[in-house]
Amino acid sequence: MTQNYFVGIDGGGTKCKARLENEQGELLGEGLSGPCNPAQSADTAFASIIEATSLALDAAAIPATKISDLNVCLGLAGVNVPRYRQTAQSWILPFKRTHITTDLHIACLGAHAGKDGAIIITGTGSSALASVAGNLTSIGGHGFPLGDKAGGAWLGLQALQYTLEALDSLVPPSRLVTDMCEALGTDEPQEIVGKSLHYKSSDFGKFAPVVVTCANDNDPVALAIVNEGKQYLIEVISHLDKLGAERISLIGGLSSQWAQWLPENIRQRLQAPMCPPEFGAVSLIKHLVKEC
Amino acid sequence: MTQNYFVGIDGGGTKCKARLENEQGELLGEGLSGPCNPAQSADTAFASIIEATSLALDAAAIPATKISDLNVCLGLAGVNVPRYRQTAQSWILPFKRTHITTDLHIACLGAHAGKDGAIIITGTGSSALASVAGNLTSIGGHGFPLGDKAGGAWLGLQALQYTLEALDSLVPPSRLVTDMCEALGTDEPQEIVGKSLHYKSSDFGKFAPVVVTCANDNDPVALAIVNEGKQYLIEVISHLDKLGAERISLIGGLSSQWAQWLPENIRQRLQAPMCPPEFGAVSLIKHLVKEC
Repeated sequence: MTQNYFVGIDGGGTKCKARLENEQGELLGEGLSGPCNPAQSADTAFASIIEATSLALDAAAIPATKISDLNVCLGLAGVNVPRYRQTAQSWILPFKRTHITTDLHIACLGAHAGKDGAIIITGTGSSALASVAGNLTSIGGHGFPLGDKAGGAWLGLQALQYTLEALDSLVPPSRLVTDMCEALGTDEPQEIVGKSLHYKSSDFGKFAPVVVTCANDNDPVALAIVNEGKQYLIEVISHLDKLGAERISLIGGLSSQWAQWLPENIRQRLQAPMCPPEFGAVSLIKHLVKEC
Repeated sequence: MTQNYFVGIDGGGTKCKARLENEQGELLGEGLSGPCNPAQSADTAFASIIEATSLALDAAAIPATKISDLNVCLGLAGVNVPRYRQTAQSWILPFKRTHITTDLHIACLGAHAGKDGAIIITGTGSSALASVAGNLTSIGGHGFPLGDKAGGAWLGLQALQYTLEALDSLVPPSRLVTDMCEALGTDEPQEIVGKSLHYKSSDFGKFAPVVVTCANDNDPVALAIVNEGKQYLIEVISHLDKLGAERISLIGGLSSQWAQWLPENIRQRLQAPMCPPEFGAVSLIKHLVKEC
């Protein structure tokens, strides 16, 4: 009898992780490759998936030809947008079986060890997902500058907007303005505009630490920005609650900071994530294969 | 004795206008060509300047060779940013004398017929300039999404952000949300995100009329957005006042709408613009030549 192999892929904007398990749930090997967001480059994403999977087979000392025996779940950034999901679904992949879902979905499954629950991600961007009784409900994840409230890029943009209005003498100066100008290396509005003309969300995100530091030092402007983000997260958590999510996890680079800022009664609703996203992807493909 | 010719150029993102006058202030000819924003394409801007000027000479039945006798003021979009101003200053133009300044500066001089005063532009973007006793002070003009508060793109972005939060059930529904979904042709968040992924500021600006209509019909969400823009414009006007600007003009596509929304005491501070920007450019180059 052929051994069944399961692979979970966590594909994001900067890296692609593969986790290879057997039917008994043993971790056989892992693989790490480059960018894997079909909305940025479909060809690169495809290549990263093949590379990470091949590395995982290698690590497990399983022959490369066994790639055609794999049951794979791809959790990819960008495929929440229909046209990029279609791109990924049109790929001719060498696996036995492939299931495609979002990076958010596998992160949620991972955080709750394959069970129901909800996650809120606050990194450079922000988004949330509830997975309850087979129903997925996503909140946010609309990208920058349209959404991503409470994400690092959003914090940075708010700080930069305030800084420019302050340098125009339209709003009061503050510690945040001084610190932003120091981080920018200039207090000349036109130079700031020139620098930021081609900023991507990750460039705005680099100013998030300035907002965090100023807010923690009680600067009223930074606190007002943080407060808007906090109100948004409270609304999101309350909505995930209404959707019936029992476990709610806050993940991403800014999660511990936001958890600290949230009021005690809200913080108590949050629970630590249990496993990484690629674990969630493996648990999903196992579940789907078992169902057949 | 050679006749002195003066040309004023109004160079913007979509078109370039030239106005040719003689020393006596007679309008001899005008020329209209294409895009003229060095921040978008320096080569195109250069070509548009030559074309509009040549057309103005043509219209005045002045030989093309006389281009080397012209005293020209270029009022260009984008040159508020140092690196694009340097680009424009490095051009080898065929004129006798060239002065380069911003589109905002010549619009301000035009609005006040070459005299002191201030302008606020609210079109797709927003910006302001005071020209008082030879001192120029600019406010805003930081571009989208960094600044441009009260501009059309800003109005559209606010409406789109609220719409997506409402579709996520995080904020209450409203007439604005219904009208925005109708304008978008969908109420599916991921479709909206997909559509708007590559929106430029002009694309966001297309939703400004939806906000205007809803605000004028007293939709509370649209009114809250308009109120934020209004507060910003009130701060700008009060600051222009402090700078000593006697005449203040509100210009651009959204100006009559904002004037209507502003409180009576603020509206009374505003005066209609007297002449177009290219007139302002001619008056500036005449002044500079006279000073020599």
